[in-house]
Amino acid sequence: MKNTFGTVLTVTIFGESHGGGVGAVIDGLTPGIKVDEALIRHQLSLRRPAGATATARREQDAFVIQSGVFEGKATGTPLCLFISNEDTRSRDYTPAVARPGHADYTAQCKYHGYQDYRGGGHFSGRLTAALVAVGAVLIGALREKGIVIGSHLQRCAGISDAPLDEAAYNDCTVLREQLCALNEKSFPVLDEEAGARMMDAIAVAKGEGDSVGGVIECAVVGLPAGLGEPWFDSLESRLAHILFSVPAVKGVEFGDGFAMGELRGSQANDAFRMRQGEIVTATNHNGGINGGISNGMPLRFRCALKPTPSIAKEQQTVDFINQQEQDFVVHGRHDPCVAHRARVVIDSVCAIALADALLERYGTDALAADGQK
Amino acid sequence: MKNTFGTVLTVTIFGESHGGGVGAVIDGLTPGIKVDEALIRHQLSLRRPAGATATARREQDAFVIQSGVFEGKATGTPLCLFISNEDTRSRDYTPAVARPGHADYTAQCKYHGYQDYRGGGHFSGRLTAALVAVGAVLIGALREKGIVIGSHLQRCAGISDAPLDEAAYNDCTVLREQLCALNEKSFPVLDEEAGARMMDAIAVAKGEGDSVGGVIECAVVGLPAGLGEPWFDSLESRLAHILFSVPAVKGVEFGDGFAMGELRGSQANDAFRMRQGEIVTATNHNGGINGGISNGMPLRFRCALKPTPSIAKEQQTVDFINQQEQDFVVHGRHDPCVAHRARVVIDSVCAIALADALLERYGTDALAADGQK
Amino acid sequence: MKNTFGTVLTVTIFGESHGGGVGAVIDGLTPGIKVDEALIRHQLSLRRPAGATATARREQDAFVIQSGVFEGKATGTPLCLFISNEDTRSRDYTPAVARPGHADYTAQCKYHGYQDYRGGGHFSGRLTAALVAVGAVLIGALREKGIVIGSHLQRCAGISDAPLDEAAYNDCTVLREQLCALNEKSFPVLDEEAGARMMDAIAVAKGEGDSVGGVIECAVVGLPAGLGEPWFDSLESRLAHILFSVPAVKGVEFGDGFAMGELRGSQANDAFRMRQGEIVTATNHNGGINGGISNGMPLRFRCALKPTPSIAKEQQTVDFINQQEQDFVVHGRHDPCVAHRARVVIDSVCAIALADALLERYGTDALAADGQK
Amino acid sequence: MKNTFGTVLTVTIFGESHGGGVGAVIDGLTPGIKVDEALIRHQLSLRRPAGATATARREQDAFVIQSGVFEGKATGTPLCLFISNEDTRSRDYTPAVARPGHADYTAQCKYHGYQDYRGGGHFSGRLTAALVAVGAVLIGALREKGIVIGSHLQRCAGISDAPLDEAAYNDCTVLREQLCALNEKSFPVLDEEAGARMMDAIAVAKGEGDSVGGVIECAVVGLPAGLGEPWFDSLESRLAHILFSVPAVKGVEFGDGFAMGELRGSQANDAFRMRQGEIVTATNHNGGINGGISNGMPLRFRCALKPTPSIAKEQQTVDFINQQEQDFVVHGRHDPCVAHRARVVIDSVCAIALADALLERYGTDALAADGQK
Repeated sequence: MKNTFGTVLTVTIFGESHGGGVGAVIDGLTPGIKVDEALIRHQLSLRRPAGATATARREQDAFVIQSGVFEGKATGTPLCLFISNEDTRSRDYTPAVARPGHADYTAQCKYHGYQDYRGGGHFSGRLTAALVAVGAVLIGALREKGIVIGSHLQRCAGISDAPLDEAAYNDCTVLREQLCALNEKSFPVLDEEAGARMMDAIAVAKGEGDSVGGVIECAVVGLPAGLGEPWFDSLESRLAHILFSVPAVKGVEFGDGFAMGELRGSQANDAFRMRQGEIVTATNHNGGINGGISNGMPLRFRCALKPTPSIAKEQQTVDFINQQEQDFVVHGRHDPCVAHRARVVIDSVCAIALADALLERYGTDALAADGQK
Repeated sequence: MKNTFGTVLTVTIFGESHGGGVGAVIDGLTPGIKVDEALIRHQLSLRRPAGATATARREQDAFVIQSGVFEGKATGTPLCLFISNEDTRSRDYTPAVARPGHADYTAQCKYHGYQDYRGGGHFSGRLTAALVAVGAVLIGALREKGIVIGSHLQRCAGISDAPLDEAAYNDCTVLREQLCALNEKSFPVLDEEAGARMMDAIAVAKGEGDSVGGVIECAVVGLPAGLGEPWFDSLESRLAHILFSVPAVKGVEFGDGFAMGELRGSQANDAFRMRQGEIVTATNHNGGINGGISNGMPLRFRCALKPTPSIAKEQQTVDFINQQEQDFVVHGRHDPCVAHRARVVIDSVCAIALADALLERYGTDALAADGQK
Repeated sequence: MKNTFGTVLTVTIFGESHGGGVGAVIDGLTPGIKVDEALIRHQLSLRRPAGATATARREQDAFVIQSGVFEGKATGTPLCLFISNEDTRSRDYTPAVARPGHADYTAQCKYHGYQDYRGGGHFSGRLTAALVAVGAVLIGALREKGIVIGSHLQRCAGISDAPLDEAAYNDCTVLREQLCALNEKSFPVLDEEAGARMMDAIAVAKGEGDSVGGVIECAVVGLPAGLGEPWFDSLESRLAHILFSVPAVKGVEFGDGFAMGELRGSQANDAFRMRQGEIVTATNHNGGINGGISNGMPLRFRCALKPTPSIAKEQQTVDFINQQEQDFVVHGRHDPCVAHRARVVIDSVCAIALADALLERYGTDALAADGQK
Repeated sequence: MKNTFGTVLTVTIFGESHGGGVGAVIDGLTPGIKVDEALIRHQLSLRRPAGATATARREQDAFVIQSGVFEGKATGTPLCLFISNEDTRSRDYTPAVARPGHADYTAQCKYHGYQDYRGGGHFSGRLTAALVAVGAVLIGALREKGIVIGSHLQRCAGISDAPLDEAAYNDCTVLREQLCALNEKSFPVLDEEAGARMMDAIAVAKGEGDSVGGVIECAVVGLPAGLGEPWFDSLESRLAHILFSVPAVKGVEFGDGFAMGELRGSQANDAFRMRQGEIVTATNHNGGINGGISNGMPLRFRCALKPTPSIAKEQQTVDFINQQEQDFVVHGRHDPCVAHRARVVIDSVCAIALADALLERYGTDALAADGQK
């Protein structure tokens, strides 16, 4: 449903880039979940532009919880978060020019000119701040259940990060540590040297008035087997649904994904084995999912992010009101790369989809921490 | 919702591989749409295993329309299709062995042993016959509106097909012809010579008791600009949702997808231009979608299909009832490659998602052909 | 969604009065639920016209389970039921005449003449056979959990049945016995003498070429407290939603309903009391629901059913194709009263709504009987 | 879905009685709809307690539009409204006492003590302010399309108002005038003398520390024929769903409703006739709906509202934390009657359900005023 996602846990987002702010309503939370404002702030800080290469737009992302929290805990009724916009410079935008790679023209086709065109309006990446705040609540709750989500910038500007641990036979010790470490990093790579080269390449692109894309790889440990539904509500379907809602994501693959198209069946199948009385797989080409349902191995998927469409170079475009071609330079303040900042958005929407699936499977109280009523 | 997809046009599927049959209910059809049984048969024939390399299971896929059609046209009330199973050999299956790469073990985790385990039961690719029959009704209706969907086997066993026409500046003449031609082919390639080599490679894999995967590329011409919703109901989200419901699909990308992660913004952006009074783009790296909404250019996406998990080679697995490891050879009759057969399934689910989006955008009568009441 | 009801347990119905048959798909069942075909037959027999006053259309309602049951138990994947039509006499219907009180004209407005007009087509009460078959599966499962649903014909043709036991302080012994007894009766009254007078009155109406309406009162014992959601998914909202889907239902009230509009607050409030360590209410004016959520007392609601619109008397109507007035006598075979037959439909849709709420609250396995895996 | 209603137009509500405030998100609005803040204020004023008999809690209901409006018009993306709480006196509430007739105890059962118990928290009638604000946007848009909604307090404290005009043969001139006049009145009756007696009776009840209930009758003129869906999304189902979400509503009936249960078919059927080239009915016992679909006659329904459960008299209840009985007097500030204030809530939720049905039937732009892009 347009701006609402989920079956039993639902998230509704609203807001615009240059309006009053952005926000979200989460409904269906297990009552009693701790709402950790420090964690929300931490997650928002990971999304926030920072460093030499980033956009000059800086906001503190101060959020207000408008409902649904009482004495520091989720009541179970709708939690509304609102994040005011602060540092907006709307004069940078004109209503009629279709910025290439952006939604300006398609918004015009859909909304007939009534859309708030400033800074992409409702289509702006600014709304991901609301998703990150929502995600922080769920990421915190999932951790209490032993479910840890984390991502790294697997590839950026042609440079690859070191791989995540394979967690073969479901030995997740190393992978879990990697994910926890990544969750603390503002530039999420395992190999700091590779990260430094990525940052250099981003700076080069910026210097040339250009931008770069990348690939985020996400993993989840601690998920129970048997989660997901057949066919249309497969874990892959639900996750891909919300992942493709994230701006700039143009590809999603689970396990070995597109590389599986090149394999033989004997290479792609994950052999089932017994380890310490548990059924596990020896490899994890399928990314922890068989037939759309979790098999207890780490969930693993990758998202391709296109390069930021806002670049300083002159581009060809049209004025869609006057229906004429024009040359054009994007003004406004933009990032030469959003892939590393998108990491926390990917983690957040992953948390939303998984929390929804868990609540549908195990009922309203599924996210209750041990000892919670 | 589990086995139901869609917002205003909904499709519900049911059935098992070795039960009475498989079927689907389509609700929300524009009344008066022609239900062309010949087209349904044609589409089902494209899905059916055929040729030397295919599974020995052969069924005529005779379907019965149980409701929703009156005097050859859709009434607008639910249309239920049922396809009986005929050629089932259930003795090939045992309840306790987790075939690697299949849903046997995850179904056990979810359904506690009550699932129909024979031939994958409800998780079987057999259910895609129902999706194809549903898709045929919608593909026919969309064609009447000038919207043509088609796919080719872009890559299989390491061999690439010729590319689809780029339809730059939205000149779709050649692309439309390619799609129409592909819709008639049982092995859907543009380059017959490449296709012959793919078939040889499939036969080699079969001879070695193995299987291969592939990549299906799909394109759609004739879609209006402005279709899709922001955020969670972006065209990409809806399409990916249903595409990942198709068995064996492990990756989905729109436009240049993962390759965009390697590009600069100046390379990935599609310049807007005027052509014959229409706003078009000079290139189509974004696959016809900006901000989740169609821009009037051809829709273009690719799906990675893993190799058929059922292979004749001995594999390692477990007996999940007795919780012990065992070596195992898949019996039953299986295809060494399903990618080419999956093509018509991809087209069908694409038609479902697009028809739903069109009906939500333009109302109940959006699929009425010219001259229809 | 049109012909699909439910959030996590969904029911989709299809079919027409004079087409191949009617059916339903239930999705989201707890795996392992017993599917008791004898109970389905029993429930269908309660819906079937019988006795001197009933319509002459007689069908055995033989049903086929097309999917979702394996070895006598629900698999948890979609269960499709199909009931063939047998005794159809389509010559009794013409496409253009709007039978007063029926959906012929509104169907024409909505479906532009493509609807199957024979016998009301998809709008026919015939589809309630599918709802009853679905309901039987759920009623059986709920009974295993101690939840008993039952109804009586509280009022018919101006005659009242004896009241259901009040179950004050939640002592449900007598009420439970009443409900169980009613579930065995084809004419569901507590007071057989009142029932005899109702039947006489129905026969009189029939003799005069007319029909009568009535009121069904339904009660449910054994429901846990805390079921339902705030606001839009209140128990009352969900139940009313599906109750108003039943043909002929024109009013629904919970607890004392409209009579509460006449009371003072001091009369309408139900005092909370302790009984054997349980919180109960001394009275049950609110019908077991406060703020949309069950309070552990018996659920109680009433449905008004209008008199059968098909009567033998001459009526004034229009031919909506030729747009002219005409006098008209309904042919076809019809009941002078459907209220007593509607009883089992009311129970069935109540079971659907409650099962959905229970599964959303307690998770997928909420309907598992004791000892079930 | 819990706190979200609708299929293509969705409304999500949030907030608590004594928290920061209450609000709502509307998604799916036709872009370009005028958002008339004066109309929102007017509608909120009709809901606000006023006069000698009303609760002493007085708030200005100042609202902020947090998103979705640009230059005075709906953008078509989510519109979030927020209304701050001002005049809260939380000391009046204790966490453990179940006020009879309220949701305190059921909230405890559902939320395990984490609910915001102050003033009913999320279950408070305070949230209807958000519904009224949402409704005002839609009521304004519907008026532009010639669709007028209005209600009167048909019965209160045993006193009846004069009847609405019957609009027989769909002559709505008088009825439309009545509805428009009612929309301006703070105590919505047609017969001012009856209204004065109702107000006296309310004052008497208040003087006795008690409260009264009532019946709201709502009518809608200008609705097209053919609106609604068969079975589960019948107009009656959708309307009843949202009407039963309104606190205190315990009964809903369409047309003659429960009175139809007492009629013969020959009395209850509405004869179809031709008038000025239009198909109409001579009477409107069915309330403008046949088979769940509008027939072009005025929509007509009634809602029973129970007396305000908060009364000054001593009542028996329990302390649900200490599990013991106690006598109890409600503190806080409350209305001796909410039925007249509920009128604008009924109109508002009616507008939500109808707007959703219109948008599903006619597409995204269905609410565009004449001349709007």
